[in-house]
Amino acid sequence: MTARPSPVSRRRLLTGAAVAGLGAAAGAGTVAATGQETPVPVAVTQPQTFPTGTAAVAFHGPRQAGVAEDPPAHAAFVAFTLAAGTDRRALGRMLRLLSDDAARLTQGEPALGDTDATLAALPARLTVTFGFGPGLYRAAGRPAPIADLPKFRIDRLERRWSGGDLLLQICADDPLTVAHTQRMLIKDARPFAAIRWVQQGFRRSPGVQAPDHTQRNVLGQLDGTANPRGPEIDPAVWNEDGSTTLVVRRIRAEIEKWDMLSVSDKENAVGRRLTSGAPLSGHEEHDKPDFTTVDQSGLPAMPDFSHVTRARVEDPTQKILRRPYNYDDAPNAAGLPDAGLIFASYQRDIARQYVPIQQRLADKDLLNEWITPIGSAVFAIPPGCTEGSWIGAGLLS
Amino acid sequence: MTARPSPVSRRRLLTGAAVAGLGAAAGAGTVAATGQETPVPVAVTQPQTFPTGTAAVAFHGPRQAGVAEDPPAHAAFVAFTLAAGTDRRALGRMLRLLSDDAARLTQGEPALGDTDATLAALPARLTVTFGFGPGLYRAAGRPAPIADLPKFRIDRLERRWSGGDLLLQICADDPLTVAHTQRMLIKDARPFAAIRWVQQGFRRSPGVQAPDHTQRNVLGQLDGTANPRGPEIDPAVWNEDGSTTLVVRRIRAEIEKWDMLSVSDKENAVGRRLTSGAPLSGHEEHDKPDFTTVDQSGLPAMPDFSHVTRARVEDPTQKILRRPYNYDDAPNAAGLPDAGLIFASYQRDIARQYVPIQQRLADKDLLNEWITPIGSAVFAIPPGCTEGSWIGAGLLS
Repeated sequence: MTARPSPVSRRRLLTGAAVAGLGAAAGAGTVAATGQETPVPVAVTQPQTFPTGTAAVAFHGPRQAGVAEDPPAHAAFVAFTLAAGTDRRALGRMLRLLSDDAARLTQGEPALGDTDATLAALPARLTVTFGFGPGLYRAAGRPAPIADLPKFRIDRLERRWSGGDLLLQICADDPLTVAHTQRMLIKDARPFAAIRWVQQGFRRSPGVQAPDHTQRNVLGQLDGTANPRGPEIDPAVWNEDGSTTLVVRRIRAEIEKWDMLSVSDKENAVGRRLTSGAPLSGHEEHDKPDFTTVDQSGLPAMPDFSHVTRARVEDPTQKILRRPYNYDDAPNAAGLPDAGLIFASYQRDIARQYVPIQQRLADKDLLNEWITPIGSAVFAIPPGCTEGSWIGAGLLS
Repeated sequence: MTARPSPVSRRRLLTGAAVAGLGAAAGAGTVAATGQETPVPVAVTQPQTFPTGTAAVAFHGPRQAGVAEDPPAHAAFVAFTLAAGTDRRALGRMLRLLSDDAARLTQGEPALGDTDATLAALPARLTVTFGFGPGLYRAAGRPAPIADLPKFRIDRLERRWSGGDLLLQICADDPLTVAHTQRMLIKDARPFAAIRWVQQGFRRSPGVQAPDHTQRNVLGQLDGTANPRGPEIDPAVWNEDGSTTLVVRRIRAEIEKWDMLSVSDKENAVGRRLTSGAPLSGHEEHDKPDFTTVDQSGLPAMPDFSHVTRARVEDPTQKILRRPYNYDDAPNAAGLPDAGLIFASYQRDIARQYVPIQQRLADKDLLNEWITPIGSAVFAIPPGCTEGSWIGAGLLS
């Protein structure tokens, strides 16, 4: 976790106190002027700040934020199609604007020219992660480090959820922060690009479970248990130059069919217990699945075609870092849900890491009966940038 | 606040410990069997529980929950149209089913026959509030205590966001809990009714601000400052029999136009400072607006046509309890936002309390330039029920 208390929040607090004309304001102003880090005495009538709202994640650095941190509760994945006239120079202008405002907003400062500055005050671990699709490299006249995925037989892809020249992955622990950030950044990009699709998703709210809990998806499954953690992340995710790649798939859950299964049928399809997330060969969520264990009837405890069996990866450099969000759009008139998973995975190399796993799942995965990929997109995640520079400078300047 | 720690959470914790085969499970089981209230020793490997997730609000009582409590972070307003054959007896069957499952789910227990029981385990202050539209009273052969609103000149109502025979207002501090509850309850209602509309909304996430903070809406305004609080709620909201009424309006924000205003123009339209929410006649959010104060140029500090001036109510029995949620759906291809407010207000009597305020606002409110009502519905909120009974029993049995 790179979350840290925002330096801005203290300033904002002081400003707020001054506006409210509190008795503590004069003393607090002195502390602000000397720039000391000592805690400011808080007047009784002063609004209490809550750490979930003021937590900020650094925007600048050799790697982009929004990848390795614990995923915040809310996300908007915003994909753009570049306008016909957006050439290399225009791309640079757009990415300068976007990087500048993303840097401000992630630190709780308003975007340039924002007249709704109050909505920027609580970053709530806001991150903005830039992804470049194959079309952006074409517009830039440079070879793309990523390529569209092969067709999988399970895919039922819809154009309205697929592709994209530029992606902004906006994540925060507060949905109003996500909404405001999305609006500000779309205004920056609008002269250069049209909206291709927007996918809004959620995980558990802050404080509902431990920050490092495994996400439960709309089918009730613990999703992400096998993720690389801590020191396992670097060899799986980050290239030497600070870049990585992202696959975004919209996976519809066929919940009504899923609801008709018994709990044990569900567990056989997944290969894990629903309640604990333990593999069927073990007892606790993080027990390593043992594919040699047999049950009382002599059959493998981990069914050959269970999701976990098909998805398993032993080589740590071939693992992928999943960072999924649930979606739940309005049901239709008959009450059938429109829900599922915004699957997002980070890995060094899509062809070497993601594709083999997805190919095994597409070939034989019991879970395919109850999930349908309806959207798909790939993006290169360029390195981060230092203060004063911008995301994509290495490609475009 | 009627939130309390869920009695279920302790049981769930014990069950989880037993399933996981932890060393502490045997000792914990003994405590459970004796039913003692003493804290159970928690093993280091046992998942930590977080109070935001396990908090439960009582379902049974003389008044329905989901009205006077601090609004949780997420809401789904689900409106149904009764099927042609849903007569008085069928209504009773439907409401028994819905009440029974709502009571379970709010306490962290799965709905009857739910095979995704894990998704019910964290109620996160879940409430399910039942509203009866005029059509439900027609089907029941009883006079309705509510009537459709008069037409207001500012209305641009769309059928897809308006009306409804039955409403379920589902609120919780966790979006996955809302999604699961919505799915379970729609399954109960489906034999009797079709989905008319679903509106999903949000407020600040738990822990972002103080629980009693005033909600900031997508226009950046503090919204709800003038709400009745504490002892002011009863005379404004609750009838003697435990009933009340609900107005739900979908109010689109013309955000792009709003963004073009200066901060002071915005403040004049609202009648409050954007940052602090203080009335233009005062200094702090909860200062009472003074409509006699003049500014340096001799003009009223509170502009005659500001929202606060037009909406003001002096008589405490004529106030309304606003409980709004923001919405932010996907922008269009040009990047124009589809965002606004799910305005929800509770009051004893719609005609006596809500309509006069809305009429004054419709006639002259500067804010009308930047907001457009596109949906409208009214519901009677019947009294709560005791355990073993069901919502609507007084009307239908």
